[in-house]
Amino acid sequence: MSTSARTPAAAVATIGDIPLLDHHCHGVTTETLDRATFESLITESDWAAPEGTTHFDSQLGFAIRRYCAPVLGLEPFATPEAYLDRRRELGGSEASERLLRATGISDYFIEVGHRGDEILDPAGMATAARARAFEVVRLERLAEELVLAGCDAAGFGAAFARVLDERLEHAVGVKSIAAYRIGLDFTPGPPSEGDLESAVAAWLERTAAGAPVRLDDPVIVRHLLWAAVDRGCAIQFHIGYGDADVDLHRCNPLLLTEFLRRTRESGARVLLLHCYPFHREAGYLAQVFPHVYFDVGLAINYTGSRSDEIIAETLELAPFHKILFSSDAFGAAELYFLGALLFRRGLERALDTFARRDDWPAAERRRIAELIAWRNARRAYRLDDDVFAEAERP
Amino acid sequence: MSTSARTPAAAVATIGDIPLLDHHCHGVTTETLDRATFESLITESDWAAPEGTTHFDSQLGFAIRRYCAPVLGLEPFATPEAYLDRRRELGGSEASERLLRATGISDYFIEVGHRGDEILDPAGMATAARARAFEVVRLERLAEELVLAGCDAAGFGAAFARVLDERLEHAVGVKSIAAYRIGLDFTPGPPSEGDLESAVAAWLERTAAGAPVRLDDPVIVRHLLWAAVDRGCAIQFHIGYGDADVDLHRCNPLLLTEFLRRTRESGARVLLLHCYPFHREAGYLAQVFPHVYFDVGLAINYTGSRSDEIIAETLELAPFHKILFSSDAFGAAELYFLGALLFRRGLERALDTFARRDDWPAAERRRIAELIAWRNARRAYRLDDDVFAEAERP
Amino acid sequence: MSTSARTPAAAVATIGDIPLLDHHCHGVTTETLDRATFESLITESDWAAPEGTTHFDSQLGFAIRRYCAPVLGLEPFATPEAYLDRRRELGGSEASERLLRATGISDYFIEVGHRGDEILDPAGMATAARARAFEVVRLERLAEELVLAGCDAAGFGAAFARVLDERLEHAVGVKSIAAYRIGLDFTPGPPSEGDLESAVAAWLERTAAGAPVRLDDPVIVRHLLWAAVDRGCAIQFHIGYGDADVDLHRCNPLLLTEFLRRTRESGARVLLLHCYPFHREAGYLAQVFPHVYFDVGLAINYTGSRSDEIIAETLELAPFHKILFSSDAFGAAELYFLGALLFRRGLERALDTFARRDDWPAAERRRIAELIAWRNARRAYRLDDDVFAEAERP
Repeated sequence: MSTSARTPAAAVATIGDIPLLDHHCHGVTTETLDRATFESLITESDWAAPEGTTHFDSQLGFAIRRYCAPVLGLEPFATPEAYLDRRRELGGSEASERLLRATGISDYFIEVGHRGDEILDPAGMATAARARAFEVVRLERLAEELVLAGCDAAGFGAAFARVLDERLEHAVGVKSIAAYRIGLDFTPGPPSEGDLESAVAAWLERTAAGAPVRLDDPVIVRHLLWAAVDRGCAIQFHIGYGDADVDLHRCNPLLLTEFLRRTRESGARVLLLHCYPFHREAGYLAQVFPHVYFDVGLAINYTGSRSDEIIAETLELAPFHKILFSSDAFGAAELYFLGALLFRRGLERALDTFARRDDWPAAERRRIAELIAWRNARRAYRLDDDVFAEAERP
Repeated sequence: MSTSARTPAAAVATIGDIPLLDHHCHGVTTETLDRATFESLITESDWAAPEGTTHFDSQLGFAIRRYCAPVLGLEPFATPEAYLDRRRELGGSEASERLLRATGISDYFIEVGHRGDEILDPAGMATAARARAFEVVRLERLAEELVLAGCDAAGFGAAFARVLDERLEHAVGVKSIAAYRIGLDFTPGPPSEGDLESAVAAWLERTAAGAPVRLDDPVIVRHLLWAAVDRGCAIQFHIGYGDADVDLHRCNPLLLTEFLRRTRESGARVLLLHCYPFHREAGYLAQVFPHVYFDVGLAINYTGSRSDEIIAETLELAPFHKILFSSDAFGAAELYFLGALLFRRGLERALDTFARRDDWPAAERRRIAELIAWRNARRAYRLDDDVFAEAERP
Repeated sequence: MSTSARTPAAAVATIGDIPLLDHHCHGVTTETLDRATFESLITESDWAAPEGTTHFDSQLGFAIRRYCAPVLGLEPFATPEAYLDRRRELGGSEASERLLRATGISDYFIEVGHRGDEILDPAGMATAARARAFEVVRLERLAEELVLAGCDAAGFGAAFARVLDERLEHAVGVKSIAAYRIGLDFTPGPPSEGDLESAVAAWLERTAAGAPVRLDDPVIVRHLLWAAVDRGCAIQFHIGYGDADVDLHRCNPLLLTEFLRRTRESGARVLLLHCYPFHREAGYLAQVFPHVYFDVGLAINYTGSRSDEIIAETLELAPFHKILFSSDAFGAAELYFLGALLFRRGLERALDTFARRDDWPAAERRRIAELIAWRNARRAYRLDDDVFAEAERP
């Protein structure tokens, strides 16, 4: 085992200077957080830990104590109490900025459709993180906003097309939570106009009768997806694990196979997000379909000391030009910081292992690391250097 | 690699003094075993190995030769013939006691519903192992006993409630083999009284017509589960691999997702057993649902030299307060001994790895080890110290 | 870590003298290949890599540059351009022979039903590789040939029986691509004669109307499988990953469970091919069913530097007498060479790890290695030594 594999500091040094493009995350909160709120941000559970236990007793909790505590001026493995005291002492803004500015992330692609009032928007993120920030539009949220604004069934298709086009003038791509709302085993083709109008009418009736404006109709969700396909968008899909609202067995990316066949020549690119525990399946899809990319964002944070293995498992079937970095962080600045730190470390160690086993040259390791860290994302999203030059860091 | 990671002896020394609570196992046999019977106990296959081969040529077989042989006074890697000769020479009782008493297991939670006439009951296990033994009731067996005793369809619901209450005066929890009998993709809610009565009537008709009294009706199985839920029980579920009678693709714990949502506030706790090869899926459920716990019992024994990796894979998404130890041993004393030995070793090595990677402090590693070894089970089963103080070891 | 685990050369030395029986592969091409053709042979994708990328940027591509380049007289990690120039300079025949003759594969079981006009037949392979070569018949292709030859619906059953019997006079087994054509979730029993005839009639109508002669009717495929079962054949099944034509979620070997139960006493043996990412599931089936064997052929090549882990994962539940070697190579000689090299290395390292952890004796490691390398295949295919003595190497 090489020295760099032993010591995180050394590991990071080697590829630590490569900027990261975080192609999927949400905004950070700058609130000063009480313990219950903070604990709710470091788990995918919607509920408090059982009495007598804490969400800090997890890989993520240990990683926070080990690596985030020093960023806030504490010793490694400070207790949860000491950590949260210090975090409050600094204040939510200062703590978040310290952590964000230590990530080495140069670009954030930020999905804005989830609990947007609690977190910073892209401009706020850019300032807090001293980085570039770009917007990703959540398709389902866009449709819900139309309904909330009073759109009728006959006008839905045209209205959606218009707002999507408007948003895509600035946004770098779209995101779908079809996995949550209808499962990935949906009918792969687009619905007819008539079916769409009927489905929207039924949805409007339900909301008129008092149901919350929550899009979970498969016909409508499929329409949104094909609207994005027709525009040749970069389309992010929630895949694999999330909170208790997801039926994880319906989030296997293989269920998208026929959809991927039908969209192969459309010009759209499909970005499979997080994917755990189906990351090997995602790697297969990334090999066989030219327009498919994937990452294991969320799982890197949540598996902490085990993330090295998860990252190595992503480097099997997928071509090196199809793997992306994301943190999938939401709310807690710790998640961006650890997402970046653990990703750099895991990738470095995997490449070191390959060098030990198979003599991969240093230049090739560096090249592969840059592909995964940011170059693949720029290609997948079809963004040229000008886009990044224009989007100056604050 | 640290010294403790190299040598099992040293590895065990560090956490070897932590007592284990084996929250799911069966009774041991004290018979003196011929080769065919012994081979049948060291595989999940229902059949002999193909001609010219032996079930000893497996991870489990190699672990027996490596670690159990010395307990019986032989050199490591004695041949299968020498091992079985020595075992017969000692006699089944002596061999079993030597192995059981070397496990370091202080408490056995023993499921009594499977082939009970061939193996020791909890009292017998307590004596043989010099440990505490507690009973776990198999729900499906309880229902089958009612039918064998002549219960009629109209009286089934009340009779089942009565015998379940009686058994729960002593038992620490219940077990369901719904995975085997109906698959885990069952309708998640409880059946109506009318549906139950009809289903029992149909079952009684089948048995009256000569069918074996084997409960595989989904309506009745769901009733048993909800009887346990309504009592706020600790409910063990067979998950993942077992013998050839199981449809493994219907034993994925994710299929329980909706059942878990509906039982979250019931007070019941759900213990997912063994889980391989779905242990990552089980870890997800243990993170997002406050009442879900899991172990990888059976797989530890059967993967032998590879069990370190399996155990490490359980330490990803699941909070450390949700992981349990079990051997899932049945019949052969070797399975309890190896279950304990390999578990201690695998957990120690995983924690050593995390210490090497991320500096986990020794005190924290010890604390986590104790949680998984026995504390989590006491909490999950809601057993306070008095219960264990009263249940004196023989 | 032992020296042998560090250095491929040393690792190969230890079990490098064990001949390999490649129980599933296709023929090699001896054409002189342009870059596009070569790239199409080193991916399971049916399409070129996206603009600006290359299929060489993959585990397989790196393994070719590292290990095949020296066989052709280049330095390790020659560029793709230099590698292909040198390959063209040598010519397709010379390059292929060099690589094949460096594999240490003594026996090839060659499936002849896929793109047979582009690749060498078994006799050609024997000469090119200086090895023995045996034929495996693709069931679906045999049926398609009957239809192309003008067989009618009423005569299909008898005609298929006749040609199958004829082919089995020489072939060592059969192969089914049911996974591709109908998914593995097919009705497990054989169809009736009437159902078969109707299904063939419908197929003939479709082809008469201009459809390509491509067998994807589940009734007919089931008939072919049961014809093989009734003859007590060795039956290879495509399992797990392949090209974009496969619905991978319908290629889980667990879907065969009921078929395996029904064929257990038939005398047939079932060989599960490649299996990734379902190799743990395959290992379970190999443990519980006496007539089930498996390998991870294709995945070894395609995961390159990660193949050590994949191979280790196959050594969990499966008895050591149920695991086979294959390359699943097609076309490019590099795939046979790397399949053999990476398999030897991965198996050696896994056994070294078990020796380090659990003191596996050298003689036992050697014995297990020989089982997996060739002895298990001879037993599974019921081929005695005479068969191999008669089939002299060219």
